[in-house]
Amino acid sequence: MGKEGKVNFQLKTPKGTRDWHGTDVVLREQIFSTITEVFKRHGGVTLDTPVFELREVLAGKYGEDSKLIYDLADQGGEICSLRYDLTVPFARYLAQNNVQNIKRYHIAKVYRRDQPAMTKGRMREFYQCDFDIAGAYDSMIPDAEILRIVKEVFEDLPGWKGKYTIKINHRKILDGIFEICGVPQDKIRAISSAVDKLDKSPWEEVQREMVEDKGLDPAVADRIGEYVKLKGGREIVTRLQEMPEVSANASAKQGLEEMALLCNYLDIFGVLTALSIDMSLARGLDYYTGVIYEVVTEGSTPSASKNEVAKKSKKEKKNADPDEDRSNDPTLGVGSVAAGGRYDELVGMFSGKPIPCVGISFGVDRIFSITKARLDSSQVIRPNEVDVFVMAFGGRKDFTGLLPERMEVARALWDAGIKAEFVWKQKPRLQAQFKAAENGRVPWAVILGEDELKDGKVKIKEMGLLDGHPEKDGVLVEKVQLAQELKRRFARKEAELIDRTVS
Amino acid sequence: MGKEGKVNFQLKTPKGTRDWHGTDVVLREQIFSTITEVFKRHGGVTLDTPVFELREVLAGKYGEDSKLIYDLADQGGEICSLRYDLTVPFARYLAQNNVQNIKRYHIAKVYRRDQPAMTKGRMREFYQCDFDIAGAYDSMIPDAEILRIVKEVFEDLPGWKGKYTIKINHRKILDGIFEICGVPQDKIRAISSAVDKLDKSPWEEVQREMVEDKGLDPAVADRIGEYVKLKGGREIVTRLQEMPEVSANASAKQGLEEMALLCNYLDIFGVLTALSIDMSLARGLDYYTGVIYEVVTEGSTPSASKNEVAKKSKKEKKNADPDEDRSNDPTLGVGSVAAGGRYDELVGMFSGKPIPCVGISFGVDRIFSITKARLDSSQVIRPNEVDVFVMAFGGRKDFTGLLPERMEVARALWDAGIKAEFVWKQKPRLQAQFKAAENGRVPWAVILGEDELKDGKVKIKEMGLLDGHPEKDGVLVEKVQLAQELKRRFARKEAELIDRTVS
Repeated sequence: MGKEGKVNFQLKTPKGTRDWHGTDVVLREQIFSTITEVFKRHGGVTLDTPVFELREVLAGKYGEDSKLIYDLADQGGEICSLRYDLTVPFARYLAQNNVQNIKRYHIAKVYRRDQPAMTKGRMREFYQCDFDIAGAYDSMIPDAEILRIVKEVFEDLPGWKGKYTIKINHRKILDGIFEICGVPQDKIRAISSAVDKLDKSPWEEVQREMVEDKGLDPAVADRIGEYVKLKGGREIVTRLQEMPEVSANASAKQGLEEMALLCNYLDIFGVLTALSIDMSLARGLDYYTGVIYEVVTEGSTPSASKNEVAKKSKKEKKNADPDEDRSNDPTLGVGSVAAGGRYDELVGMFSGKPIPCVGISFGVDRIFSITKARLDSSQVIRPNEVDVFVMAFGGRKDFTGLLPERMEVARALWDAGIKAEFVWKQKPRLQAQFKAAENGRVPWAVILGEDELKDGKVKIKEMGLLDGHPEKDGVLVEKVQLAQELKRRFARKEAELIDRTVS
Repeated sequence: MGKEGKVNFQLKTPKGTRDWHGTDVVLREQIFSTITEVFKRHGGVTLDTPVFELREVLAGKYGEDSKLIYDLADQGGEICSLRYDLTVPFARYLAQNNVQNIKRYHIAKVYRRDQPAMTKGRMREFYQCDFDIAGAYDSMIPDAEILRIVKEVFEDLPGWKGKYTIKINHRKILDGIFEICGVPQDKIRAISSAVDKLDKSPWEEVQREMVEDKGLDPAVADRIGEYVKLKGGREIVTRLQEMPEVSANASAKQGLEEMALLCNYLDIFGVLTALSIDMSLARGLDYYTGVIYEVVTEGSTPSASKNEVAKKSKKEKKNADPDEDRSNDPTLGVGSVAAGGRYDELVGMFSGKPIPCVGISFGVDRIFSITKARLDSSQVIRPNEVDVFVMAFGGRKDFTGLLPERMEVARALWDAGIKAEFVWKQKPRLQAQFKAAENGRVPWAVILGEDELKDGKVKIKEMGLLDGHPEKDGVLVEKVQLAQELKRRFARKEAELIDRTVS
């Protein structure tokens, strides 16, 4: 083995996938842990479903996007596909096990054979973090709690406080408006998806699409324009309720009542200030049945990423099919960073017994890219969490390297639960040991010397790799008290750092 | 949607896969977190690779087992397969990025189209937890640290202390023994896999397989028998070194020297007592180049699970191909719970430049099953982590349900980072609220009453769901100090529980 030499194909991950390593994966883990903490604060229980499902389970759930589903090869036995999202597997789980109510969260990868655009964070394999509430409850209470979760996540993520907007609309209001304007039933879906583009395209272009491409009566399109341009705070609800034709429409009326109730709850929950009621938001109309929402942020707007896109798109084009590549389309931006809504009928598609559901999906890969860009460059992300580097120092020519002694000290630290490393050499140079500690930005060194060991002592030295203040000489401590002494110093240092942050 | 009624196929997860939910997934998360903590204590950095790889990457790495690889359908573009383990993707990553040294851990699912046997924990989709050290270091030091990691994991898992054995052997010793006995080069692999069955079959059966099935000279088989029956502590190394024919064989000699050095290091690391040097351990000979090891435990022996197997196998047989189903083969047991070794040539298969590697893979699904069975039934695993249930109590007929008040209190608790829930009803009955708290085994209740609220007060009551000692009446506290008061009580309770455990 190995003697055959190099493989005769390009070593790479499949298109649209990547390895996550180094400080990227550390930052992503921090994001996961922030999100998980919020999910648990609201009583979420976790569910883990298989990465592939019977193909029949996914069939008929994603409309035109079904062509993006990854299929497994037919190797005999069942026909399966990789999951496209976490929502359909969740609905399958509820129906299969007759679960009537649950708050579940699920953090896992999903798969879409879309044209990848790395610069936008659009990958074929990517993580979703979902929280969903299933069960029949009083109107809008779970919906309000989901939006409270959205707020907590973005308030807790580093660099996001106050930099996000929750755009919200209601499927029933939208349906009502289309009815009022005179959109034929069979055109509602096409018109919705045209309207949904209003965040990226000017009204004229959307209007042209509705009339020329979708064959809508221009007068109807004009009437739609009056409504869908509306956006703002809860006063939008009142304004619509005061329009006689709107309050006369049963669907719009109910949607607005629910939206008004939701605003009351969101006010109590402290979420209202982050909300933008936006009549142009129309996402996933074949799926959602009530409120729908999408979280956008500074930097997810097209202009911000234009430069970077132009710079990177050349490189990307090489591997991409030119007819499909939209990576240098500056109107795309990174899109939304979280999205969701109420879907009361999906479970019923499996069991015949609908279970009301409402949920949110966080797009972690996009959140990661934006968080990374916002991080202060002075903020150190350590690749690992090692606290102590155990080193040997010897001046004499017959220096043994003290390997057994370093091992013994490392063992004592591990026994005490302390994260510790040493260089795996019999006789490492002191320089190489310091270099290894520096690479890992390990905050503490324990230095072993032959003379000190004879007296039962070892030296502790703060490396200053985290705050730029290394200790000059370090201090000698009894070897038998080393772990205890280190723990005391960790605690003292932590208190110091907190004091410094506070003052 | 939903009106079409029930689907016309059986709602289930694909064969050999399952949903993880409820307390099972909580226990599994605890196992992950124990293992991750140990990995981090040793300076591990995490790597996350795609769930599928270019098929060429996996080709030629798994020998006969390649037939168990899941392929993705050819939908145009690259040809890919689901990963079979985490080791080959790790080697691909090292070669692709020219990484010369790393301690990496990876916890993720792998995929094998094997015949599933749920009772044994053999699934088609299952988790592996891997820790590997890549890089050229002084002999046996990283190998010793890997085995120290094995010890820490099993000492830290609940119910495992002292209940596991690390079986170890060395590829070079085994090669040497086969040479000494006169096994022809082209039969070494077949004879190895026969020898590997000695933990489940008597010597006579293994001997018969070597002679009758594999065509080995009976005299050679007898000679092998003398060596491979050897097992025990480090004295086995000395015994083999004292045999003149063994110490005359270059391969065996080197292997034994390395094993002796490893034993020295493991003695310092406190791992030696868990070790059993076992000349019959022969796993994965086409892959490993140095030490090989496998962790076994009480309950992973065949007899322990015999009964359960007999009970469940009938049910399983219905769905299984009878010619392949080994689920009721009582000789299988759950097998090993962790395994690994040194593989110095694998990376070279990709890049032509070998990088020495040594690692361990923990079989979490099996560890989960055994841990669950060992758990004291009195040990409560909570489905979620909610600390406080916010309730409304009203005696009067015109009781409003205090929904806005409950929401406001919940918000204050969430703001303080406290995990809290309330019932999503306008006017919930007190009984229903207590029931919901009980279902989640929520330890604390905050009870709102109209009269007390007028005085700016709320009641805190310890539910006694964790230790069976509910508070009789609870105490009234100022609403504005609720979060603070609760945190004080959490801390006091924790101190109490620790005191109780200590005394």
